[in-house]
Amino acid sequence: MNWLRPLAAGGCRVTFGGQHLTPSWARRAFAAHPQNQVAEGVVKLQQPKAQLGTDEGKKNFILKPPKGTRDYSPKQMAIRERVFNTIISCFKRHGAEVIDTPVFELKDFDIAGHFDPMIPDAECLKIVHEILSVLQLGDFLIKVNDRRILNGVFAVCGIPDSLFHSTCSTVDKLNKATWEDVKNEMVGEKGLSPEAADRIGEYVRLHGGLGLIEQLDQDPKLSQNKLAREGLGDMKLLFEYLTLFGIADKISFDLSLARGLDYYTGVIYEAVVLQPLNAHREEPVSMGSVAGGGRYDKLVGMFDPKGRKVPCVGVSIGIERLFSIMEQEVEASKEKIRTTETQVLVATPQKNFLDVKLKLISELWDSGIKAEMLYKKNPKLLNQLQYCEDTGIPLTAIIGEQELKDGVVKLRVVASREEVNIPREKLAEEIRRRLES
Amino acid sequence: MNWLRPLAAGGCRVTFGGQHLTPSWARRAFAAHPQNQVAEGVVKLQQPKAQLGTDEGKKNFILKPPKGTRDYSPKQMAIRERVFNTIISCFKRHGAEVIDTPVFELKDFDIAGHFDPMIPDAECLKIVHEILSVLQLGDFLIKVNDRRILNGVFAVCGIPDSLFHSTCSTVDKLNKATWEDVKNEMVGEKGLSPEAADRIGEYVRLHGGLGLIEQLDQDPKLSQNKLAREGLGDMKLLFEYLTLFGIADKISFDLSLARGLDYYTGVIYEAVVLQPLNAHREEPVSMGSVAGGGRYDKLVGMFDPKGRKVPCVGVSIGIERLFSIMEQEVEASKEKIRTTETQVLVATPQKNFLDVKLKLISELWDSGIKAEMLYKKNPKLLNQLQYCEDTGIPLTAIIGEQELKDGVVKLRVVASREEVNIPREKLAEEIRRRLES
Repeated sequence: MNWLRPLAAGGCRVTFGGQHLTPSWARRAFAAHPQNQVAEGVVKLQQPKAQLGTDEGKKNFILKPPKGTRDYSPKQMAIRERVFNTIISCFKRHGAEVIDTPVFELKDFDIAGHFDPMIPDAECLKIVHEILSVLQLGDFLIKVNDRRILNGVFAVCGIPDSLFHSTCSTVDKLNKATWEDVKNEMVGEKGLSPEAADRIGEYVRLHGGLGLIEQLDQDPKLSQNKLAREGLGDMKLLFEYLTLFGIADKISFDLSLARGLDYYTGVIYEAVVLQPLNAHREEPVSMGSVAGGGRYDKLVGMFDPKGRKVPCVGVSIGIERLFSIMEQEVEASKEKIRTTETQVLVATPQKNFLDVKLKLISELWDSGIKAEMLYKKNPKLLNQLQYCEDTGIPLTAIIGEQELKDGVVKLRVVASREEVNIPREKLAEEIRRRLES
Repeated sequence: MNWLRPLAAGGCRVTFGGQHLTPSWARRAFAAHPQNQVAEGVVKLQQPKAQLGTDEGKKNFILKPPKGTRDYSPKQMAIRERVFNTIISCFKRHGAEVIDTPVFELKDFDIAGHFDPMIPDAECLKIVHEILSVLQLGDFLIKVNDRRILNGVFAVCGIPDSLFHSTCSTVDKLNKATWEDVKNEMVGEKGLSPEAADRIGEYVRLHGGLGLIEQLDQDPKLSQNKLAREGLGDMKLLFEYLTLFGIADKISFDLSLARGLDYYTGVIYEAVVLQPLNAHREEPVSMGSVAGGGRYDKLVGMFDPKGRKVPCVGVSIGIERLFSIMEQEVEASKEKIRTTETQVLVATPQKNFLDVKLKLISELWDSGIKAEMLYKKNPKLLNQLQYCEDTGIPLTAIIGEQELKDGVVKLRVVASREEVNIPREKLAEEIRRRLES
């Protein structure tokens, strides 16, 4: 499932190059964007990239929708979602658990169109921050850098353009390897001079916040480079916005972050979940990247027959990685994971009360309550209560002869075993109230 | 996404053949069950079916998980869902629309295990009723029949077992063709005698409710047949439960319903959405099946090495069919479908107020409000208000110098243009209150 943030620009809703392009076109271009490694589009993208200089490569290239998807407009998708949600809520109301689902490696959020600098970029980082905060996976860090700053650094260190890409991929290893190892690879394998490597090393080992940005802005060599100056200006703006969002303390401007720089034209970022400190380590250790993205202003324009530029910024969430970290956490915490969302079990101490139970559970379902009963005509009350304990159902609604006569239902809190009589017509409301508070 | 209703049977939670089988085994068996026509398992299922009589076919058959799925336990699926929901809520909070999603033809809900007759079967029909009621697609009808009743009918009409299957598929055409056409096919193509066809015709043209069940129960020929008597007994029980659920008026006991009888061992059902009456028609016309299922008590046991029986009942929802009916309805009603769920646009009439807007929108996001702003430093107020009108955002939160000084935000209802000042710290609560009521 990919998500697109439709752009608001001065009253005009979607502004791919100032014009409203068909959503299907937009979807296809996005399916092929660099972060979506699942989409087949990515594979097809390799070809035109090689032909970027030629007009033919640009114009004759046809993007196919990724396998398993069809051409749906955002409106159709909204209708589909409404149908899906109705069905899923109904299944949950009836106590079902999910048994399989297709695997998506990544979930993407993209903002496309013209806008003032760094506002959507800051929102992408806010989104990553919100997701990692809500999931409570422990401490995390979002590293940011800018392609233009890296370009500037390489230029002022005297690295020829031809070595830029291979040097980059070596720099990217700094989060796992020592500087010595990285330098050895630069000199031994990539063909840099030891002096050039040392000059790069002075920069790429730096990380920090607003202070570092200002320090580099004053750097006598770097401030001579136009690209680096642009990148540093935007980075400063980004940190101002992140400070207003209250999340700057989790963001690290890190000059070793390179990612797959081919696509990116500006800011890049990568979020890592950190392992807690322990006796053997001085610094928290990264458990690997869980989200990443950046600005890719040239990619979508490549597929536009008129060559219109569509600035884009986006982020991909590494759903499988997040899932496995979450699973480890749950395993470690011994938290009991419920596989259904059932709120109440409808039970009875009486024999031959199936019809009463069926009527009551039907009322609850129709009020939107997630309710179950045992599929037995005459189960023992003890078995019904035990089932709640075993599966984690928090409430039991007990109805016997006396309750039926009095027009009430006995609501039992499974954890505390507390019981209280509730007027039958208020039962759904009371269940909702108790579980919400 | 397939859903399984884990079974509660006398305190034992999942009872595949009385034993708790591994969820992965259960998942695989279900992926292959007859209603799930998407799963590759179905294709593979064709082979062992042919070998049902032999032990080899039963024991050596290996079910593979369908493409795009992995072996997840219900617990893992629950964790995955938690991660997915966090990410999706975050994307929605930031005004994104879905641009693609994989296509699932069907969604399944299954109940597996031992239980008292017809209780889970009735719940499956309640589920179909709930989904079709909530979706408001107009009138609908759920046809039910029972494989055993059909078997009985065919037997008392003197149809040899060898002609059972082919006669069935002809009977199934009665919802589209006239009895004359169906009879011609039976006699001309399927080799039945005209008399036998007429005898069948007396039965399969019947449809009704409890009255019809009682009438057939008294039928001198049919009441001689053991299978038919069993089926009619269960059908009566089913209608009693459906009456308690308050949905019997939408259920039609229809003797022409056959479905793919190969898999089914008892009750079968199929839901159809009805086209409204018009001048040209005397009876509402079916727009085709939108859900269907039944009892398949022998399927899962086929894959159990020990041959344990696992009674199963399930229903598949025809998601693509529902989607296209829904789309037609929306088209006809001119309803404006929103593609995002944004609740409020954060706006300002002031220049250079970007920092104020960023701080306010960040507070709203953190309170769970779905909020957007224009990605411009200084958009015109008129453009901001126009954007709400164009996209259907119901509220605008306006903050200018006066509001900032007074610690309030001006909340504007887009439809009525009514404006009211709200204390800033109560804004999220007020937005939620207004949109819920």
